[in-house]
Amino acid sequence: MSKNLSQQINNTARLAKEASYKLALISRRTKDKALLSMADALGKNMGIILKANQKDILAAKKTKLSSSLIDRLTLNQKRIQGMSDSFRVIAGLNDPIGEAIRVQHMPNGLTIRKIRVPLGVIAIIYESRPNVTSDCIGLCLKSGNAVVLRGGKEAINSNKAIFNILNKAAEDCGIPKGAINFIDALDKSAVRILIGLNGLVDLVMPRGGEGLINEIMRFSKIPVIKHYKGICHIFVDKTADLEMAQNVSFNAKVQRPGVCNAMETLLVHKDVASKFLPPMVKKFRQANVEIRGCQKTRKIIPDVKQAKEIDWATEYLDLILSVKIVDNLEQAVAHINKYGSMHSDAIMTQDKQAAGQFLQTVDSACVYVNSSTRFTDGGEFGFGAEIGISTEKLHARGPMALEELTTYKYHIIGSGQIRQ
Amino acid sequence: MSKNLSQQINNTARLAKEASYKLALISRRTKDKALLSMADALGKNMGIILKANQKDILAAKKTKLSSSLIDRLTLNQKRIQGMSDSFRVIAGLNDPIGEAIRVQHMPNGLTIRKIRVPLGVIAIIYESRPNVTSDCIGLCLKSGNAVVLRGGKEAINSNKAIFNILNKAAEDCGIPKGAINFIDALDKSAVRILIGLNGLVDLVMPRGGEGLINEIMRFSKIPVIKHYKGICHIFVDKTADLEMAQNVSFNAKVQRPGVCNAMETLLVHKDVASKFLPPMVKKFRQANVEIRGCQKTRKIIPDVKQAKEIDWATEYLDLILSVKIVDNLEQAVAHINKYGSMHSDAIMTQDKQAAGQFLQTVDSACVYVNSSTRFTDGGEFGFGAEIGISTEKLHARGPMALEELTTYKYHIIGSGQIRQ
Repeated sequence: MSKNLSQQINNTARLAKEASYKLALISRRTKDKALLSMADALGKNMGIILKANQKDILAAKKTKLSSSLIDRLTLNQKRIQGMSDSFRVIAGLNDPIGEAIRVQHMPNGLTIRKIRVPLGVIAIIYESRPNVTSDCIGLCLKSGNAVVLRGGKEAINSNKAIFNILNKAAEDCGIPKGAINFIDALDKSAVRILIGLNGLVDLVMPRGGEGLINEIMRFSKIPVIKHYKGICHIFVDKTADLEMAQNVSFNAKVQRPGVCNAMETLLVHKDVASKFLPPMVKKFRQANVEIRGCQKTRKIIPDVKQAKEIDWATEYLDLILSVKIVDNLEQAVAHINKYGSMHSDAIMTQDKQAAGQFLQTVDSACVYVNSSTRFTDGGEFGFGAEIGISTEKLHARGPMALEELTTYKYHIIGSGQIRQ
Repeated sequence: MSKNLSQQINNTARLAKEASYKLALISRRTKDKALLSMADALGKNMGIILKANQKDILAAKKTKLSSSLIDRLTLNQKRIQGMSDSFRVIAGLNDPIGEAIRVQHMPNGLTIRKIRVPLGVIAIIYESRPNVTSDCIGLCLKSGNAVVLRGGKEAINSNKAIFNILNKAAEDCGIPKGAINFIDALDKSAVRILIGLNGLVDLVMPRGGEGLINEIMRFSKIPVIKHYKGICHIFVDKTADLEMAQNVSFNAKVQRPGVCNAMETLLVHKDVASKFLPPMVKKFRQANVEIRGCQKTRKIIPDVKQAKEIDWATEYLDLILSVKIVDNLEQAVAHINKYGSMHSDAIMTQDKQAAGQFLQTVDSACVYVNSSTRFTDGGEFGFGAEIGISTEKLHARGPMALEELTTYKYHIIGSGQIRQ
């Protein structure tokens, strides 16, 4: 059984590799035609997708999955329309493939062109959200990459339906067979097999909880770009516009607490803490946010729960906020660089020098001045969609879309040059 | 002992991380001043370096290391002058840090700036060449990265001398303590400890033999960019200028056979094989190159040794060449993509369409038309120096120098923006 599975996944990856060579050569016109046809296909086949999704929801309810998980799993006409719209947006974006990033004419007559090319085969391992299936298929296709998808078992019926519809529409438009792949084996060992296919798969992107990511980091023989947790901070500096700071902090925590770019820790300069914190905490509490504060916070608001060391390193993804009062900007930055996840962090300040120092010294993918951290998102960054948000420093950082799914190669054109 | 070593390496990496935050903020002027002062220091202290190098050479002779290894290890005035010159070249190169790669003004008033920043702490694990020590120190300093060096025990005295001289010159010019580090423990476990320091070290670059690289790939918890073997090909197409093809092929194999961008396999179109191969093989044999050929090659030149399957996948680094006759361009490309190491491959052709197809379909970092593969090199590419040649697809490909040692972050400037 496991040997069969290994063979099956190996074959899938081998076909994907072969398809990737063909896909790299396909014109923008063909790719965009396919993307628009895939957008139509999602619209036309809503009934089939919703029916498959109903199966997943029923199964989820039977196994008593949490309501937030069921919410992530659930599709409706609006959500499918959103998936379809994404394909149209992606079709409208520039094709990154073939772009000459740099051209050099060398003294010995060689011309060296640095050309943007696809990565090859991308494996995406994710959990329960079915729209990941369609977003990843669209972005990989436009960026000329073959894709191997492995979604969570909770969404297996929805994912298979979406995959079948999109794959057929793509093939009908001349996209090579094997460019889009979905591993439907529920066996957990499928992931372990897939991330061992060094030489066939070029990049592994895990999107999911800490357990999944740690397993993949531990066993992958292929380069991994993590879409890891977001422990995001807002630092309210001594010169902050406190009303603006209150609005932005409230938005970053409350507007959608379950996502990676929501704030988890609020840092407040000691000079403004006693003025800023009481109304801020009151507003948070009205929105049912539980506050866990440092000693100094508790001196100002005694009924705040004591934050423990572990709180500073926790991604709550919930209506919980840790609050710490710091002596200065340097202390705030040191806290962020120690406990943060290099995702998204903001300073609220009217002091340009402080803003500059924060931007330069916070070691995160996205560093904000006077703005909610909730904007770290491919759509909000104008990338049309996103395949994930990288918390790595290598290759790509922050929201990842078309350009981030490419690498480059050098074309060197000569006329018989030899090395002296 | 091993616990002490672990603590010692941990401390080194921690200091490097702290220094990296400071180094990221240091002006080009200070970095260039330090680089020029380091160039001078190498010149002034040649005697000390040569004396330390003598110790290594004596020890190498005692332990009967191969003459080619002793050659790689040996320094002389000219080689030290070359190391010193590299620092002057690097000082003259643009500082990549702080460059705005892209600026976007969003409809909601946010300004998103994509800014080039250092990676942080780079660990370089290498073998016997002492000039790697100085090249890596120069490139890491200019690109704002702290560096932790771990060189081979054969060159320990040379490396320590070079490190001490450069580190002192840098610190005297205001480069933060901890920016440049050298692990002098000879214990093999040092490497295993270093590549486990996830969170302190941002990138591991192994430069050495397959054994070293495989160990690091297996145990590193940190992203690795491999400088792996180069199985480079030249394909002589049916329209090739055969005289040019002979010159280029000879150069790619013979000029310096022990390096990664030398040719290991010659592929020849069947239509020109009987004309091209006999004089080519004669010329190779005059230069003491051993030829291992496919069946078809042996039909043309019967006294050629039979190539085995393993030959196609072997980096000889020596005066040995495998030769294969192929039916067409597609077969040549398929062979390269199957057996090559995605390093450097060339086509000799006068057919522009064939050249284009080869450039697009060979999945290598550097693809050449009518040129020797020996030009894959930071210096030859105009990068001033190189820290290695990446055979990865992720992050950086081909020769790696200053720009390849950077990542980016987003600075997002707002005026109270919240997500709706």
